[in-house]
Amino acid sequence: MDWVTVMGYVAGACTTSAFLPQAIKIVKTKHTKDISLMMYSILTTGVLLWCVYALINHDWPLALANAVTLFLAGWILLLKVRYG
Amino acid sequence: MDWVTVMGYVAGACTTSAFLPQAIKIVKTKHTKDISLMMYSILTTGVLLWCVYALINHDWPLALANAVTLFLAGWILLLKVRYG
Repeated sequence: MDWVTVMGYVAGACTTSAFLPQAIKIVKTKHTKDISLMMYSILTTGVLLWCVYALINHDWPLALANAVTLFLAGWILLLKVRYG
Repeated sequence: MDWVTVMGYVAGACTTSAFLPQAIKIVKTKHTKDISLMMYSILTTGVLLWCVYALINHDWPLALANAVTLFLAGWILLLKVRYG
């Protein structure tokens, strides 16, 4: 694996794992007042499109990163809808 | 421009513009208590790496999307640091 691909995976690890502390924070506090519903609605849609784009381009770092982000962003979106 | 590239730009428009309503919400309310500092620290780092990855791969939809996301995520990070 060349270093550019490695960098893609590191980038993906960051932009993916970034959403985990936000989800954990919400689960702990049950507070989502400061979080934008519109942000997570648009973000979840966009991440789904990136997944399709990456799969078509056989861009595996991008595909893997967005599949996990889709799960986490979707989770935060559901928590926001639940807690308001 | 083929439809896959167009989809990349649409995906980028979503995952980029998604952060704008969050930034606007913070500017209006001056409240960031529910927002995770760790999320935006990791995210900003990751988006910067995606920018470099995309430029090296000549992947313009990915590069453009991440350049704007870098600006918006960095802005939210600064607002979070400011308002706590």
